[in-house]
Amino acid sequence: MTGTPAFPGTFHVYDTTLRDGAQQEGLRLTVSDKLKIARMLDHLGVTFIEGGWPGANPNDTAFFEAARSELKLRNATLTAFGATRHAGTLAGEDPLIQALVDAGTDVVCIVAKAHDVHVERALHTSLNENLEMINDTVSYLTRRGKRVFVDAEHYFDGYQHNRGYALDVVRTAAEAGAEAVVLCDTNGGMLPTWVAQIVQETLEVGGDLGIHCHNDTGCAVANTIAAVEAGVMHVQGTVNGHGERTGNADLITVIADLQLKFGWPVVTDVDLAEATHIAHGIADITNVPVGGRQPYVGQSAFAHKAGLHASAIKVDPTLYQHIDPSLVGNNIRMLVSDMSGSANIQLKAAELGYDLADRELAARLTDKVKAREAEGYSFESADASFELLLRDALGVGEPFFKVLTWRVFTSDQDGFEGDSEAVVRLEVKGDLEALVGEGHGPLNALDLALHRALVHAYPVVDGFELTDYRVRILDQGHGTDTIVRTLIDFSDNERTWTTVGVGTNVIEASWEALVDAYRWGLAKTSTTLSA
Amino acid sequence: MTGTPAFPGTFHVYDTTLRDGAQQEGLRLTVSDKLKIARMLDHLGVTFIEGGWPGANPNDTAFFEAARSELKLRNATLTAFGATRHAGTLAGEDPLIQALVDAGTDVVCIVAKAHDVHVERALHTSLNENLEMINDTVSYLTRRGKRVFVDAEHYFDGYQHNRGYALDVVRTAAEAGAEAVVLCDTNGGMLPTWVAQIVQETLEVGGDLGIHCHNDTGCAVANTIAAVEAGVMHVQGTVNGHGERTGNADLITVIADLQLKFGWPVVTDVDLAEATHIAHGIADITNVPVGGRQPYVGQSAFAHKAGLHASAIKVDPTLYQHIDPSLVGNNIRMLVSDMSGSANIQLKAAELGYDLADRELAARLTDKVKAREAEGYSFESADASFELLLRDALGVGEPFFKVLTWRVFTSDQDGFEGDSEAVVRLEVKGDLEALVGEGHGPLNALDLALHRALVHAYPVVDGFELTDYRVRILDQGHGTDTIVRTLIDFSDNERTWTTVGVGTNVIEASWEALVDAYRWGLAKTSTTLSA
Repeated sequence: MTGTPAFPGTFHVYDTTLRDGAQQEGLRLTVSDKLKIARMLDHLGVTFIEGGWPGANPNDTAFFEAARSELKLRNATLTAFGATRHAGTLAGEDPLIQALVDAGTDVVCIVAKAHDVHVERALHTSLNENLEMINDTVSYLTRRGKRVFVDAEHYFDGYQHNRGYALDVVRTAAEAGAEAVVLCDTNGGMLPTWVAQIVQETLEVGGDLGIHCHNDTGCAVANTIAAVEAGVMHVQGTVNGHGERTGNADLITVIADLQLKFGWPVVTDVDLAEATHIAHGIADITNVPVGGRQPYVGQSAFAHKAGLHASAIKVDPTLYQHIDPSLVGNNIRMLVSDMSGSANIQLKAAELGYDLADRELAARLTDKVKAREAEGYSFESADASFELLLRDALGVGEPFFKVLTWRVFTSDQDGFEGDSEAVVRLEVKGDLEALVGEGHGPLNALDLALHRALVHAYPVVDGFELTDYRVRILDQGHGTDTIVRTLIDFSDNERTWTTVGVGTNVIEASWEALVDAYRWGLAKTSTTLSA
Repeated sequence: MTGTPAFPGTFHVYDTTLRDGAQQEGLRLTVSDKLKIARMLDHLGVTFIEGGWPGANPNDTAFFEAARSELKLRNATLTAFGATRHAGTLAGEDPLIQALVDAGTDVVCIVAKAHDVHVERALHTSLNENLEMINDTVSYLTRRGKRVFVDAEHYFDGYQHNRGYALDVVRTAAEAGAEAVVLCDTNGGMLPTWVAQIVQETLEVGGDLGIHCHNDTGCAVANTIAAVEAGVMHVQGTVNGHGERTGNADLITVIADLQLKFGWPVVTDVDLAEATHIAHGIADITNVPVGGRQPYVGQSAFAHKAGLHASAIKVDPTLYQHIDPSLVGNNIRMLVSDMSGSANIQLKAAELGYDLADRELAARLTDKVKAREAEGYSFESADASFELLLRDALGVGEPFFKVLTWRVFTSDQDGFEGDSEAVVRLEVKGDLEALVGEGHGPLNALDLALHRALVHAYPVVDGFELTDYRVRILDQGHGTDTIVRTLIDFSDNERTWTTVGVGTNVIEASWEALVDAYRWGLAKTSTTLSA
């Protein structure tokens, strides 16, 4: 009933995570990071991967050099970004154009100014010279055998200010041999109907168009979709929406929208089912976590908390989901929280492989979860700690060890193996184990001491590794004398798990999460006890 | 040139942060939290504040009770949320409808099922009975003197599945006296052109319409704008886009788009200029930080890192911004980072009130910042630590004190004033100060010891307070034996400041940030030394 446009014969997904995405506050990518991300982007099935701006940034020059020997792409074509030649020179004599050629990619993307005020005030040249710079640069590069895209910078603002000049830029680039002219909403101020109208009017120039949007009005994805509906055949964006200011259009959301809402074969279904995995894998490299609410791939994207919804989902999961989450490699998640009814707790238990049909038991566990959350615990992201509570409630929990005392000492002086010393006393299988751990920082020292105290009785702990922890003050505004929540991630070769601890200090909270992490790991690797 | 629709005579901004927003994973709001947030929403200038679902949730019942005595709203009208009566009863005999009446608000919002499959499979009643439930509930409540809105749940999916029935729901609600029927994209799967088309077709029923969108396709804001362009006069959303799964339409983005892009008088300009302040204030209560990239109000929303842009911004700030950030109470920010050139560093210095015209000095400081960032420091959010580096470079830095040694001890046994004991030795104004701090956790103990060691020489430190800290493992995958970055927030009555520390352990990194925090506070409160 509602319209879906026909798939154009040729369609480009052009990723610029490594170039425009890297402009994001807090994001820093090494050459090795970029190589890893490029492999993941290739795995996602994008058409082009923009690797950076060789010549302008030494790190990017080094990336293209490394890519030539180390990067084998299955699907995607690597592209190098550059700008039109400087005013008053020739493309063949401009060192930045030379650096672009030297990057050795078959495809390049050239940014050109499309807004008359920017030409005059930022580039300090004439409108005609800017057109000549575009013509000369594109012609030179195509003569050198490159496929060339042109990013028309500030296109939409430029079009609104001086329509004729903006169209001249598109025409000049297309006539000089650009494979597509990419209309950029550089300042991100557009709305979808405006984008649709301007794209439609620009298509009258002839030639293929692309779209490059930023999210300053909260419409980057919608503006991209609007341009596609209007007829562009090339979309630019970044994984996880990275980018300067409010970021670029989130490329995975764009791909999933086009593929799952329009039914377009943008990538293969197999590749799309890797989207969640790839989004989180790239986040592990950028060290910028995937937003919980991120469309399609966020941890919460298919999470249900409301009792109303939870009951209905028992009837039919499709009633409360816009797509089957497995299409993008995500999962439905029932949340355990103090707003949960027993229905959520029962579904969560089933998800973890336990039978919690007993209503009274479910109600008792629900009360316990609510009481703990009132103290500051959060089980929504600490499934392992929740599972330990659940196992206790079901009577299948086993403590594995009993903590007698612990203490830890840290100073600005290094000892033998670090600046911190922990002493942990445990009762393990009837024996008293008192072990010392020295390490870098109190958590490391406590982890080593606990590990050493357990490994004799449970050799499997040698495979456990603490991979991350996060600390949050819960009740702000009272200085350090407050409640602290710590979340700890562990992994072994097979799985990763998260536990939570709460206390009046970071060490106490960390210790509790650490003990839970070892207990859960032991429960999972003890064949007689796992669910 | 591009179209802006005319402002309708009556327009509602309906906030549901306290009800639908509270469905977000990880969000828990107490009655006191809700009262504080409601006051902020009122300050933002929204028309309606949906407070919760009285009767369904004890916390929400308590909120409405508290609101009657404690909540004085300047602008907004408080509304209570409920559902149509149960099947086979009468509205006047349904306890949940009674609870809704008892909440004592002049305005109520009733959710009604608009998708035939949901009526039959989730509500387990007939299509006709559902219409009767809507008619009866709305009629009863209007007879009791309430203004009634109806949320037509799953409207868009329902319209695509059974157009006639969905339109019957809208017609029934309007004829029974609903002031507006709000079309809900409950599962969030819509795209803007679909929303526009369905809203246009639904307007033919007659009566006023509203819109309620979720962000599952990344289009919640754009879908809301599309509905407004198509003719709805009521928009629902949540501050910071809180909500289940991918969240609801971000209400501040919607308001700012309508006000600044269409030129509509949605709220007053004075209220809009509070938007950033309010978004962050609500985040302080929800304890869910405002996303850095959040449109209009995010910390990075007007932040510039690229050297290309930074140079152009020197020429004219409007060239690279879609709006003047002060319109929404935000600021342009020049980022200091290892991608920065000297231009950014100079602009940042100017922003902090220092003259760094000396190019050689600026280049030297730039190198120092880059070297520090390579070690793991991040100055983008730690302006205070950057300013200390800058003051050192300019030769106006003063150490105020010299750290000789520190150590801290934590155990599971409480001492006199906590479980942690720190000893700090400083040289302050020529004297040796060796002080002990006891507190909850190592950071608290170190903070107390440092405070005590300084307060004799610098009584002003009595006004300093540590308000939050964040810890991040930088190089994941090596257990606890890694590099840790700590960011610490301090405040006094006048200002808040953030410092950064890096080390092989959380205590070392925290101590460095703590020392920087005291140094910066002393520099700012020392009249002879401040910039």
